[in-house]
Amino acid sequence: MATLEDIARVLGVTKGTVSKALNGAADVSSAMRRAVVETAVELGYSRPRRGDEAPRLAVFITNMAYEHPEDFGYDILVGFRKMAEPAGYSVHVIPLTIELEEQIPYEQYMLRENYLGALFLGLSLRDPWLKDFETCTSPTVLYDNRVTGNPRVTYVGADNGEGLHLAVQYLAGLNHRRIGYLSSALGAYVYRQRYEAFFQAMRDNRLPCGKGMARNSYHQHICLDEHLPALLKQGCTAIVCSHDTLAQAVLERCREKGIRVPEDVSILGFDDLPLCESCTPALTTIRQDRTELGKSAYCAMASQIEGVAPSTFLLHTELIPRSSCAAAREEKLTIDDFLERPGTMV
Amino acid sequence: MATLEDIARVLGVTKGTVSKALNGAADVSSAMRRAVVETAVELGYSRPRRGDEAPRLAVFITNMAYEHPEDFGYDILVGFRKMAEPAGYSVHVIPLTIELEEQIPYEQYMLRENYLGALFLGLSLRDPWLKDFETCTSPTVLYDNRVTGNPRVTYVGADNGEGLHLAVQYLAGLNHRRIGYLSSALGAYVYRQRYEAFFQAMRDNRLPCGKGMARNSYHQHICLDEHLPALLKQGCTAIVCSHDTLAQAVLERCREKGIRVPEDVSILGFDDLPLCESCTPALTTIRQDRTELGKSAYCAMASQIEGVAPSTFLLHTELIPRSSCAAAREEKLTIDDFLERPGTMV
Repeated sequence: MATLEDIARVLGVTKGTVSKALNGAADVSSAMRRAVVETAVELGYSRPRRGDEAPRLAVFITNMAYEHPEDFGYDILVGFRKMAEPAGYSVHVIPLTIELEEQIPYEQYMLRENYLGALFLGLSLRDPWLKDFETCTSPTVLYDNRVTGNPRVTYVGADNGEGLHLAVQYLAGLNHRRIGYLSSALGAYVYRQRYEAFFQAMRDNRLPCGKGMARNSYHQHICLDEHLPALLKQGCTAIVCSHDTLAQAVLERCREKGIRVPEDVSILGFDDLPLCESCTPALTTIRQDRTELGKSAYCAMASQIEGVAPSTFLLHTELIPRSSCAAAREEKLTIDDFLERPGTMV
Repeated sequence: MATLEDIARVLGVTKGTVSKALNGAADVSSAMRRAVVETAVELGYSRPRRGDEAPRLAVFITNMAYEHPEDFGYDILVGFRKMAEPAGYSVHVIPLTIELEEQIPYEQYMLRENYLGALFLGLSLRDPWLKDFETCTSPTVLYDNRVTGNPRVTYVGADNGEGLHLAVQYLAGLNHRRIGYLSSALGAYVYRQRYEAFFQAMRDNRLPCGKGMARNSYHQHICLDEHLPALLKQGCTAIVCSHDTLAQAVLERCREKGIRVPEDVSILGFDDLPLCESCTPALTTIRQDRTELGKSAYCAMASQIEGVAPSTFLLHTELIPRSSCAAAREEKLTIDDFLERPGTMV
């Protein structure tokens, strides 16, 4: 393993300068500090652990609310801390910005800030650090993102394949045969995976499913204004949504349009956010337990630190039946029926 | 939680009889013992832990050699024990037979023998206990088998998707465009998964792949006598095999037939068994580290025991380049060329 002397030799400076640069001393220029950190990462240097200092784990969060108990990320953080802190780690939450990612490579940031490992929540496929994960050496756990071929990176998330299987199986048991799928854009790994899992679940349940039965858009208004009517026109008696907030918007739109849920169409969400209980009708959904997701992320991190290299750590999902799904209507029903129903359209 | 009194009340016997039956006393009939265990499982009874007794974990093994260091299961057991025993568990290895599975349901066996959790190695899709896993309550870890919808069951294995991706990407980098896949029968979950992963990897690498490019059989002689010539006739310049022992048999058959590996055709295995280094030419393969697999199985078990419910725990794979793969021949080559080559066919 590389030492402070190795870094000093490469840069032609003293060991003291290297040490000061790594510890953020004020009398080292930022250019020198940068050169030292870059060289340290290139040489594979890791900081020695001081006996009195808790090892530090970073949780980077972006595109995800986490500060209040109703926020998606809140319970994930609680679960992670519940396992990491009793095990002797200090956990630091860092809002991640594109600016930070563009300013310094991931591995250099980890060394500079002295983090042993990191959990990422909310990364998108466009985040600049994503390419750094192909070669990074710090134990790294990604929630809902997958990187192939680097033993130091683990993907944790809900078992979306199981979740969509449970959803479609449940609706099939209620005699639904034409089931549609409405999704956010497939630019996020998790939405792409759920989209593919929907088709697999339809095949597993021997239900017909053309491409047009699964529709997606980044813009919610397109989902509501174009895709929802299109699915109803195709005769869907049930619609699975890629996430609860989209399902909630669909419930609202149906109410505006006089389409009764679940009598006319069954709606099913994914995530089991608190809103599922409070919306009308209460939303049937697939639960991913967020506290357990946080604990899973810690289990994956602990395995990494113990030298086992998990690629994927998926958590079981559960179907939570509420009021937004019911037996399929026997008569075929299309949106044209609603258009002809007097006084119900806005 | 159910008590000894609850079991006694249901059966109309004394608490002492129940206790003796659960502890295998000789003066209780086998019929009574069976009734007690069945009732205990139905009521959800678990044994209280004695302070001086290490909690017991079972490892059930079937269809897999494990007694000698070169056996597939040996290192998996070593890895599992390396983590479980320092954590205070005693690990018991039990050869699993269809007779045992037909004689007593899984959950009753676990209670009778006082196991806290179990790891299964080598189960096939035909094993009778497989249906018990849909409802069991003991923490259960399955190597290379997946059960959907029961939070108490975790699937552990190598990341076959990653493995096939690495294999096809490597061959594509060697300019192979017609790549075939040769597999054991798809009755085992792991072979079905690798088979599907092969097609996915071909799509990801934008390589053409019809159904006929991936062939399988339970009988190795059919793989060698029918499928191998068929793949070569289709112009495959590389063949990925579902496991190393099949790849080894392919190497031998090629030698018999005067087909040069890797000059005429590249062969790639999966597993990285010790034979890969000793066969001629040494076999390029996808490594699943068996000691790490055993450790992964323990990590999954520990998560279950801590109350986190992982569905899937996959281990990273690695491509191990040896001598059985080389750049694709530029000229197109089919098996007919070999047939016309004098003196090389057996």
